[in-house]
Amino acid sequence: MSSLVEPTWQTRSKQYRDFAAAKIPEAWRLDAKWTADVGPESSQNVLAIPGQSRLMTDQELHITEAYDAVALLEKLASGELSSVDLTTAFCKRAAIAQQLTFCLTETFFDQGIERARYCDAYLAEHKNPIGPLHGLPISIKDSFNVKGIASSIGFVSFLDRDPVQNDSALVKVLLDLGAVLYVKTNVPQSLMTPDSENNVFGRTLNPNKLCLGAGGSSGGEGALVRFKGCPIGVGTDIAGSIRIPAYVNGTFGLRPTARRIPYGGQTSPGRPGAFGVLPVAGPLARSLRDIKTFMKAVLEYECWKYDSAIISTPWRSPSTSTTIDGQKSQSLKIGYLLEDPRLPLHPTVLRTMKTAIAQLEKPGTHTLLDLSSQIPENTINVAMKSGFTSFLMDPDNTSSNHIKASGEPVVASFAMASMPELKEFKPDLQDVWRLNVERAQYQALFRDLFVNNDLDVLLMPVHCSTAVKHDLYGLPIYTILGNLIDHPATTLPYLKADKKLDAEYIRDVKYTPAYEPNTIEGAPCGIQLIGRPMRDEELLVHSQIIADSLGIQPL
Amino acid sequence: MSSLVEPTWQTRSKQYRDFAAAKIPEAWRLDAKWTADVGPESSQNVLAIPGQSRLMTDQELHITEAYDAVALLEKLASGELSSVDLTTAFCKRAAIAQQLTFCLTETFFDQGIERARYCDAYLAEHKNPIGPLHGLPISIKDSFNVKGIASSIGFVSFLDRDPVQNDSALVKVLLDLGAVLYVKTNVPQSLMTPDSENNVFGRTLNPNKLCLGAGGSSGGEGALVRFKGCPIGVGTDIAGSIRIPAYVNGTFGLRPTARRIPYGGQTSPGRPGAFGVLPVAGPLARSLRDIKTFMKAVLEYECWKYDSAIISTPWRSPSTSTTIDGQKSQSLKIGYLLEDPRLPLHPTVLRTMKTAIAQLEKPGTHTLLDLSSQIPENTINVAMKSGFTSFLMDPDNTSSNHIKASGEPVVASFAMASMPELKEFKPDLQDVWRLNVERAQYQALFRDLFVNNDLDVLLMPVHCSTAVKHDLYGLPIYTILGNLIDHPATTLPYLKADKKLDAEYIRDVKYTPAYEPNTIEGAPCGIQLIGRPMRDEELLVHSQIIADSLGIQPL
Repeated sequence: MSSLVEPTWQTRSKQYRDFAAAKIPEAWRLDAKWTADVGPESSQNVLAIPGQSRLMTDQELHITEAYDAVALLEKLASGELSSVDLTTAFCKRAAIAQQLTFCLTETFFDQGIERARYCDAYLAEHKNPIGPLHGLPISIKDSFNVKGIASSIGFVSFLDRDPVQNDSALVKVLLDLGAVLYVKTNVPQSLMTPDSENNVFGRTLNPNKLCLGAGGSSGGEGALVRFKGCPIGVGTDIAGSIRIPAYVNGTFGLRPTARRIPYGGQTSPGRPGAFGVLPVAGPLARSLRDIKTFMKAVLEYECWKYDSAIISTPWRSPSTSTTIDGQKSQSLKIGYLLEDPRLPLHPTVLRTMKTAIAQLEKPGTHTLLDLSSQIPENTINVAMKSGFTSFLMDPDNTSSNHIKASGEPVVASFAMASMPELKEFKPDLQDVWRLNVERAQYQALFRDLFVNNDLDVLLMPVHCSTAVKHDLYGLPIYTILGNLIDHPATTLPYLKADKKLDAEYIRDVKYTPAYEPNTIEGAPCGIQLIGRPMRDEELLVHSQIIADSLGIQPL
Repeated sequence: MSSLVEPTWQTRSKQYRDFAAAKIPEAWRLDAKWTADVGPESSQNVLAIPGQSRLMTDQELHITEAYDAVALLEKLASGELSSVDLTTAFCKRAAIAQQLTFCLTETFFDQGIERARYCDAYLAEHKNPIGPLHGLPISIKDSFNVKGIASSIGFVSFLDRDPVQNDSALVKVLLDLGAVLYVKTNVPQSLMTPDSENNVFGRTLNPNKLCLGAGGSSGGEGALVRFKGCPIGVGTDIAGSIRIPAYVNGTFGLRPTARRIPYGGQTSPGRPGAFGVLPVAGPLARSLRDIKTFMKAVLEYECWKYDSAIISTPWRSPSTSTTIDGQKSQSLKIGYLLEDPRLPLHPTVLRTMKTAIAQLEKPGTHTLLDLSSQIPENTINVAMKSGFTSFLMDPDNTSSNHIKASGEPVVASFAMASMPELKEFKPDLQDVWRLNVERAQYQALFRDLFVNNDLDVLLMPVHCSTAVKHDLYGLPIYTILGNLIDHPATTLPYLKADKKLDAEYIRDVKYTPAYEPNTIEGAPCGIQLIGRPMRDEELLVHSQIIADSLGIQPL
């Protein structure tokens, strides 16, 4: 009777993607020669294209490439650099990143530049910056709500929602601190896989090599930060979702202790009232000092007024260096866990870890301690099951229903979003008690490691592999641990896949994912540093000391 | 066939009570004339008996009566006062308190004096105190574990457990800080009623008037601190269990923000893995500065090494006084909620609140704001249901099973340990999600009250009545709110029941519990002050300012 036909999910999705793509100004569009080889099978490294394509001025290239956020903030606060110039430059660069890696979801360039203009006018009038993030463009994961901007997080069924009415708590804070928002970044369907693909915005590619995964769930952030399409990006992490993209793209990342950075007011794939292992918000950046600047700015602000769920305690300035003979010593006690036998390290990762350990324990530097004999074998793997079980505690399967609502299929990486042995798991109330007890046991186990060994920091791999081909990353065994025990954790970019150097680290073990030296050649590697809970401040100090010891430079 | 007969719960309980009573040295036993009128029907005030009975020397009376903990700590650290002398005095006074109010469970006087001797020797040898609580006797609720001391928490079925093998986390901290432990204090069966009665240790009486309840669940602490049988006591609070005993006995109390003071390693009536509204540990004391000293000492210590569940962040020294014209101002913005219509305030409490408000809003003092129109009517009452539901989330009813295990009956106040409408409640997994959402809504509501009104502190009654006859206290509507929203809260003793003064505050309402002016005559009253979450530091500063404005003195 009616001629109205509900659009299929494909139609709706294509409509929206076209609408989003059209928002990139003509003048910022790459010539076809730069995009001809772009795709998930391409082995192209696209990091140099902003310079080669000449879409950006020399000044724009310079200010987006040469400085970290701390340096930019100094220039913005002094008026040496205008926020309009800086924001315009990052808008352009982000637009280029989008055409090569599909890292963006929503773009609101005009709104960003308008905000930048306000920041500049404010500084001119008041002779003082708005706040410690004055005029700085910051990118945010799609899940953060910005008034008037869509927040579909890649669910086709969310495309027909009304425009967002309220800023997320962190968005309010960032704006109060003077930041400029201009883009939101891509995520995996459900936010629970390590490959940022969904049926609305497609798949984010790794700018170092397009055929490699860009990580997830903050994969758009990882690609954009590495591409220098933003100075700082904000992601979220419940099993590694900040650290994985930081690692596979080659940036710095921090998963803070839970409830430190405001998380409230986001669009969630799940159900309100989550418990157990909590997701956290945190930064991806080009340097550790940028991460510190972000954390300090946010935590010196009274965030509780926007988010009653946070632990409202200000940033501290720790004096962690021990003093020996009147001289400041930067010698740390570093414990390490090399690998869990269930997921052996790829040669690249093994070389990276062994090189780091050898470098760090050079005489006169730090004290290193292999902790593997102090915890039961398979601890990391068994702990992972506890973590993944805690993600399955919603008897209504809210997230799955958001997928089903539009008829869209699940993406390929969804198959790896949980453990096969949990496929038939049906949660009940007893599990809540059991999981709390289990988590407390893991927390006590790792507390004992820190306390009994007087550790400053725990060194671990971020993953058993580097970035691998799309949808093959596997279970985030080495990152979910930090979420389960709720310790803060940084990732530092360190070394790269190099089949010649890696060859001698090949062992007769089953690598999962498969080790494909030619595919991953050149992929960034890195290390993970885990601190004591609520001691994010000390962790950043220790991470900087370790970065210095390893010669790790800002991007 | 066998001649072995299992002892009945009555036999086992009497056996244990006799054993405990026998541990009080002969020399510290009161003459029968002092105990002749002791009992739950007596209207006797027993506070003067330590002085009258002459069991204690003048010096012992003086050092237990004339100083708060801060003053005692100064004398202990300087060596002016020995810990042995002080501990002996408090042991004696606690023994007297026990004979009059039944506030103790385990006594270990010899062990306490031995520890005091160690403290004195340490000071003599090192010329420095062990820590900030050097040599100070501290009493602890029975639930805290001390190696080698029983921890039955009043369950007959726990009497046959093996001796405790490990100190609770807080006990370890207190000992590391130099404190002396010598007694544990009485609790209600299940720790979930406001009357400290159980079938092992009997019922704690209120030293101000024995026929009045001593509160619960830290009722033994309330009676002992008020009796000056300890300088500082440690209780726990999940619905008012620190604040209620502090209030009805007339001491100062603090329910800190959850997870600040180590709670781990206690003997629990319930099941491990608790979630939702969390119990907290905190002090009852003779002065607010004692509370601050306790909090500061504990939180400046690295407690995480003993308890991985704590929020490991150090005590702060807030500069909260606003500066006006270069002068420090102590003017606060104080919001108040006078009452929930479902549980109208007794005349004494109404007079106390109105007197406090009038005093605090005298010109030039503070700004007061009635918040009742800013929240839905009945909010406090409806919130209580959410809180009480969260206590019923164990499908195994672990606590009830501990009672049933020995055949002991439930105590009378158990009938008032929950809300009648929850009697048939059976928890399921959906309730976990629902309660989390509800709690977040209350947290947001009260955050908005603080933020929108720029409040320093929220003033509320502690209860609708003062202490009343045993087992009639009723539901802790005004205290459970702080637990549900997890804000820190102090109780300050202020005014007393006075039937002449109270008469004009009698209204034509249904008082629950009944208002019996003759029974409660002389009962302590008080106020509750609620701060911002994690801002325990500021709350104590503000509480002191308010205490000063009201002329509230240390005990």
